[in-house]
Parts: sequence; C-alpha cells; structure tokens
Amino acid sequence: MPRAISLKKMKNSTDALRPFFEPHGIVIVGARRSPGFGYGIPLILKQLGWGDRLHLVNPVGGELHGMPVYTRVSEVPDSVDLAIVIVPATVVPGVLLEVGKRGIRHVIVESAGFAETGEEGRALQIEARSAAEKYGLRIIGPNCVGVVNNANQLATVEIIPEALTPGPIAIIAQSGVFGNILLDNLYQRGMFISKAVTLGNRMDVNECEVLEYLHDDPETCVIMMYLEGAHHGRLLRDTLEEVTRKKPVLVLKSGRTSAGRAATASHTGSLSGEDELYDSMFAQTGAIRAGTLEELLEITRVFSTQPLPRGNRLGIVTSSGSLGALATDTAVTAGLALPSLSRATVDTVRESAPKWMNVKNPLDVGPSGQFIKALTALMDDPGIDMILAITIIPFAIFREFGPLGFTVKLWFGDIASIRERAPQKPLVVCAPGNTEFMDHMAELSGPGVPVLSSPELAAKALSELWIYSRYKDSHA
Amino acid sequence: MPRAISLKKMKNSTDALRPFFEPHGIVIVGARRSPGFGYGIPLILKQLGWGDRLHLVNPVGGELHGMPVYTRVSEVPDSVDLAIVIVPATVVPGVLLEVGKRGIRHVIVESAGFAETGEEGRALQIEARSAAEKYGLRIIGPNCVGVVNNANQLATVEIIPEALTPGPIAIIAQSGVFGNILLDNLYQRGMFISKAVTLGNRMDVNECEVLEYLHDDPETCVIMMYLEGAHHGRLLRDTLEEVTRKKPVLVLKSGRTSAGRAATASHTGSLSGEDELYDSMFAQTGAIRAGTLEELLEITRVFSTQPLPRGNRLGIVTSSGSLGALATDTAVTAGLALPSLSRATVDTVRESAPKWMNVKNPLDVGPSGQFIKALTALMDDPGIDMILAITIIPFAIFREFGPLGFTVKLWFGDIASIRERAPQKPLVVCAPGNTEFMDHMAELSGPGVPVLSSPELAAKALSELWIYSRYKDSHA
Repeated sequence: MPRAISLKKMKNSTDALRPFFEPHGIVIVGARRSPGFGYGIPLILKQLGWGDRLHLVNPVGGELHGMPVYTRVSEVPDSVDLAIVIVPATVVPGVLLEVGKRGIRHVIVESAGFAETGEEGRALQIEARSAAEKYGLRIIGPNCVGVVNNANQLATVEIIPEALTPGPIAIIAQSGVFGNILLDNLYQRGMFISKAVTLGNRMDVNECEVLEYLHDDPETCVIMMYLEGAHHGRLLRDTLEEVTRKKPVLVLKSGRTSAGRAATASHTGSLSGEDELYDSMFAQTGAIRAGTLEELLEITRVFSTQPLPRGNRLGIVTSSGSLGALATDTAVTAGLALPSLSRATVDTVRESAPKWMNVKNPLDVGPSGQFIKALTALMDDPGIDMILAITIIPFAIFREFGPLGFTVKLWFGDIASIRERAPQKPLVVCAPGNTEFMDHMAELSGPGVPVLSSPELAAKALSELWIYSRYKDSHA
Repeated sequence: MPRAISLKKMKNSTDALRPFFEPHGIVIVGARRSPGFGYGIPLILKQLGWGDRLHLVNPVGGELHGMPVYTRVSEVPDSVDLAIVIVPATVVPGVLLEVGKRGIRHVIVESAGFAETGEEGRALQIEARSAAEKYGLRIIGPNCVGVVNNANQLATVEIIPEALTPGPIAIIAQSGVFGNILLDNLYQRGMFISKAVTLGNRMDVNECEVLEYLHDDPETCVIMMYLEGAHHGRLLRDTLEEVTRKKPVLVLKSGRTSAGRAATASHTGSLSGEDELYDSMFAQTGAIRAGTLEELLEITRVFSTQPLPRGNRLGIVTSSGSLGALATDTAVTAGLALPSLSRATVDTVRESAPKWMNVKNPLDVGPSGQFIKALTALMDDPGIDMILAITIIPFAIFREFGPLGFTVKLWFGDIASIRERAPQKPLVVCAPGNTEFMDHMAELSGPGVPVLSSPELAAKALSELWIYSRYKDSHA
C-alpha cells in the first residue's frame, strides 16, 4: 500500500525530516520503571545531555531517572517537536491522536505488533495511519528503534558510547536489530557514523525520503543500507540514481530466495521483490550491492576512507604469494587489471632485491625485507591506480625478535606516511592471521588506510571503488 | 615433471613419511647466529624439548643456543633420521649428498631459490633432485617451512606456543607462508591442529602422499588444504576419492583466473590447472571447495566440531529477523530445506510467546525472551536435522542491565547444555556484532558449538556438512 510520493516532495526532505534528527524538545510516551526501551531510552537521552529538553509520559505518573513522569501528553510543558512512542501496539493509535492534538508533528513509533504480525496487526497499522493522517504526522516506524545523530548526540536507541563518535557513514536499516548490530560493531572496525535511521514497517517515512535527506546531509559521505524490499520500486530507482551522483550507496538486500522473502514478510511486514530486478536496479543506478553482511561492512569501510581511483589498474605488493594469487583471482574476475610494472618501478625494486624475487605484478616480496621499497615504488608508479598491500609475517618471529628491535614497523614501514606519496590512490592493507599482528598493522596504517583480514574482500572492495568511480564519471 | 607414483606406493605413506613427523634424531644444516630460520628453528626445537635429539651444522662451527655446531654433517653423532636444510639454494645439492652419505633418508629443504624463480632455479632443483635420488632421499620442499606435529611437539617452523595445542585439524599448505597464516590464526578461533605440512615446490613429497598419511593418522579428523595446482591431477582425484570416504577434506585453491595462475607460477613453481576441472574434480570426489580464505577457516571450524547431519532440514532460531532472512537465502540456495515446524514445536513455543511473534521457520523470537525455549524445541523436533541459532541483542542493554542480573546467559541460555539434548544434530551459533558479546556467546556455547560472526558463512558451512554427509553415505 505505498502512497504515491513524488520525487519533488522528496526534495524537501531536509526540512521535512529535520525534527527527527534535530529536535528542540522530546517527549517519550511509554517511559517506565521496568527493564526495556521505556526505561533505557529516557536514561540514555538524559546521559547524552538531553535532560533539559526531555519529557516523560506514562498514565501511572511518578518519577523516572530523576525526571517527573506526566500522565498525559497534553500535560507536557515547553516546546516539543518530537515524540518517541514505546507503548503496546493497541494503544498506539490513541497516543498518536494525543500527540497530534498537542501540536507535535514528528513521531518515532518503536512499538512492534503491527503489519509484521499478520491480519490483526495490519488492521492496527491502518488504524494508526488514520490517526497520524488526521494531524499530518510524520512517522518513523512502527517496529523500529528510531534514529541516531552523532552531530548532536541524539539517540532514540540504547547505544554504547563508543558508537557515538561522529564519522562519515550513514546507516539506513529497515530492521531495528540490524541497526543495532551495526552500531555495536562498526566502531570496532574503526568505522564511525554520522546518522543512523531504522525504518521498521515504514508506515510513512521510507528509505527514499531518508536517502534524499542524507544526500543533503553535510556530515554524511557514504550511505550503507539494509533493505528487505523497496517501499516503492520506481521511486527507489529514481532516488538512488540521484543520490549516487553525489555519494556512494551500499546496499545489503535480503530475500534473494522465496524462502528468504517469506522470512522477511513476517519481520518488517514488507514484501520483498524478485531478486534479479533488484540486481539490475542497483547496477543501473550506481548503487553497490553487497553479497553478505561482511561484504557490506568491509566495502563500506574502504569507501569511507579511500578516494575513488582514476582507473582500474591494480598493483599488489605482498609478502605471501598465496594471498597475492587469491586476491588477483578476485580482482581480475571483478574487472580490475594487473598491468606490468613500469621500467622505473622494476629497476628500483630489483636494485636491492635478492635474486629469487620476481619483480612483477602481483609483487611477491616474500621474506626479502623489500616490502617498504616495493610499496613505495607502487605508490610512485604512474601506471598504477590503486594498491593492495598484503602483509604477512609469522607471528612467532615478532614475538621473538620484536624486543630486539625487529618490529612490525621495521619490516612493513610507516604505511600512513608512505600513503602520503600518492593520496589520490586508494590503498588497502590486508593482514590476515593473528589479531595482535592486525592491531600492529592498523596502528602503522593509521585511520586513513583500512586493514582488512580477507584478501578476497580487500580486492572486491577495490573493484567496487573502481566500478562506482566509472559510474559516477559517466553520470556527472 | 611429476614422477609417476602409483596409488599402491602411497598406501605405505605412513611408514614412508613417519620420520618427518616422528624423528628419532634431527640435524639442522644451516644453523646460524644471525636472525632468520637458521637461528629461530634450532631455538624453538630446543624450547620444545628436542634439545637432546638435536644437532646443528654450519661450516663455521662454534656454538648456538648452548649447543655445539658441527662443521660437517658427517661429524654429527648419535642416531639421526631427519635433516632440516636451511642453506643458500646453490649449496643445497651438495648438502643433500652429505646428508645421504651420513645415512639420513628424510630431509626438509626450507631454502628458497629453486623452480619458483625461473630457469636457473629450475636447473638447480633438477640438480638437487639428482643428488636426492642418488641416496633415495625423501624430500619435503624446497621453499617451505616443513612440518608441525602437535602430538610430540615437533615444529620445523617458528611457531607460537598457542598453536601447539593438539586438536583434530590437519593442514596441508603448498606455501609455507600460508601455513604460517593458519598456525597464527586458528587457535584464536578455538581451532587446534594435529599436524601441519607445508609442501613448497614438491620436489618429491606431494599433497597426495600427505593426504594418504593423514588418512591413516588417528589424531586427524578433518583435513584442510591450500593448493595452487595439483602435482598430478589423476592421482589427486584418486587420492581424494579414497580419503574423503573416511575424513572430510576442505580445499582452498587459488588460480581461478589466468592472472591468478600466472601469480602462482612464480611462487611455488607449480602450474595451476584450469579452474573448472578442479571444480568438478572436488565435487566428484567429495572434497569441499572453499571460495575464500575465510570460508576455508569457518567451514573447517564447523566440520571439526559438528557431527554430520542425517538430512537437509535446517531449523533457524534467531533474535534478528534480518539475519534470519540472510541465512535463509544462503541455506536454500545451497540446497538446504527450511521445513515447517512440527505441531508439538509450534505449540510449545506459542504457549509463552507474545502475540506478535510468528512461530515458524526461520523462528524469529525478536526481543520476546523466548530464545531458550525456541532453541530447546528445535533441538527436540524430530523433523529438524540441524540448527542455526542467531543470537543478537543490542550490546548497550547488557552493559546496562548485566550488573543487575540481566546476563547473556539469562537471555540465550546455557547453549552447551541445551546442545546435549540432541548431540547428533549439528548446531552453529551466529553472533555478529560486538566482539565482547561474541566472547560471551563463545563461553556459553563451549568448545563443542562454534560461534561464527557471518550468518551467510554459518548457513554455508551447515550446507557443506549436509553435502558431505550425503556424499559419504552414497560412497560407503
């Protein structure tokens, strides 16, 4: 039952959605003393500094977290432009009327129990929508955890402080839990977010409107999206086409199979479309489709830190021939080229290389000690557009000789500095193996160079950078 | 230039290869005081308790790690049946003659600089082989790091102590560095090895002979193999066919593309075959081909801990509908079925479930608190052959309420115990998100239930269990 929303209307999404992300005052309907969202969300908003702009409502009244609890929305004082609703589903329509009457126009409905649960829930969702339409309410949800805005430290979801560091990545997740997974996980990969929106059943606000909002959001550079099905296929196509001209959009879509689609039907109440249609839609609109959760995370990591390449010529420097070969397989399959190295590069590297070392692309330096020289030469080679550096060394050697001065840095160099020789070239480090070693590599690489554990994903991410770069150029 | 080795000969591989894994005495030719294998390997062997069965040789003589260094192999006293050679490539043929003359018949040549480096190296390898054949030497390498045997704590490679805990997984790696990657990484996933062999240029001992050896090795239950190309295609086919009747063999093979094959040609000097032939060979012989390094690791993890399923009927219990859908997509695509749950299971779960919860397969319990009950019911359901349990909860909630008694265990249960209700059913837990949460889940799951972070890989691993189970049954 999608409402026809014209692309023109979407143009005003910054204004239309602003109070969801930058409210002046908030009321939480359904605050309560027992464990759950009704307890945790008021607490976290207070901890995040919203206490003086926050009001709580529950018919039982009393006090929570040192704040008064009003028995009705109408009693709430001060200016309030955002309501967060955490009440049983059957009560939601009535609460929406109350909220509308109070002059609040933006509502996040976190309650579940609507279209995702069957016939009765669907009827309830229709009832809620009627109530919302009576007052022209804008609604995110139901069946979601709302939004996060790291710029002003707004979170309508229980969130760990580590996830609140501002960064360039925006999240759109149809499912609330999926949003949680990302919020809990991204910071551990050195990925930080600008905004997050969980959409739930999309009774009103849908992914297209949020995409438009993020298109114009100055803090967002990369958009990652989990989708079960488009709210409105044609609109999604038009919106993606517009947004990807400015920012990359990475999509993970479930429902590839009919069993998977059946699974999502009961989850956020959406009907997933046929998979092939989505595949071609994403390809045609410049959106990057991730095949798995891990792909979504790692490709986004590369997009959020690396420039777009000027061509598809990949240079691989590796201390493991095997991983070089695995990465080459993936890169070439995905459309990258591994050109011969320039005469100058070959000469430079050969100069000090042992006889057994083949100076070619992929450039397997093995245990020669030539990694730094080889990486530097690839950085300087004008025939190379992007670089994958695979760094492996048996960890026991570092344990043994590290204290004697044979450090990871001595062997692999100050990668963050080497990278400065050619900041326009995407550079990804791959360091599978011991996590302690990966931590060393992350330190040497700095925040500007991602360290991935999968050689195949590293190569895939670089190929997606190229595919998007080419798309963007031809749609400028 | 593969020598024709008959399958009959391979039958004696246990005796033929025993001194590589269970030597009575070892000589290291090329021990030296400067950093490198020549310094580190004598040290680690001494630390592992081999000091009284270890002798060192270097023309300069002297002492190393408190042991005398003999100037010639002929001077070495005592019974010695394994030589480890770590000298420059050009010296290797001469050393092999010395070793042969001394009556030693098993040699690990770790030196690089042979067929993998070009024409000159190839000539040197032929010369080394002639020397070896003169005395009927058995050779592992060159261009490798030899073997590990956790049963007797033998390691001819620098290795961290954590990797020396005995376990059921054997490693065959054509490349030495690849072996190192696995040794450094597996223990961090709770995976432990029986034996590891790195083959290098396979001048003599090849993957087939080692497969035969591991086939009869009582400590090995699962074999994982990294291959760049078969030494002898037909022989590999016959060997795999035999070995997989007894134990699963998981293979990661590089060289899918011609660029990838070109990369490996200079690495271990092997010529990779056409990829499609390998695909069909692995499928026909019951070997499991991993698509990526991460797949190899995670599928092996599942094979090394789970029983083979009796059918393809998968039950999914999840606290995230999205991840349930993603796992369903992968499972169904890979040949698993998600049947309806039995009447008894549905009734049991529905009894205490909130109204919004759909009791079906995949079984999305959301935040209902019904996870333990649902998992238990799937364990008891005779119509379910294997189970994927996806455990997600926003980490902030545990940080907040954990100290008040709302623990991961309270929510997801003592999975290790629940698992005991149906030990014949494979069970995999998937817990993406925060690593601290994953650690909690790993603790609850115990060593018998693997906790993976990727829902797609978890589903894929279960499907491979089923495919192998069916293969094994039909080839009994």
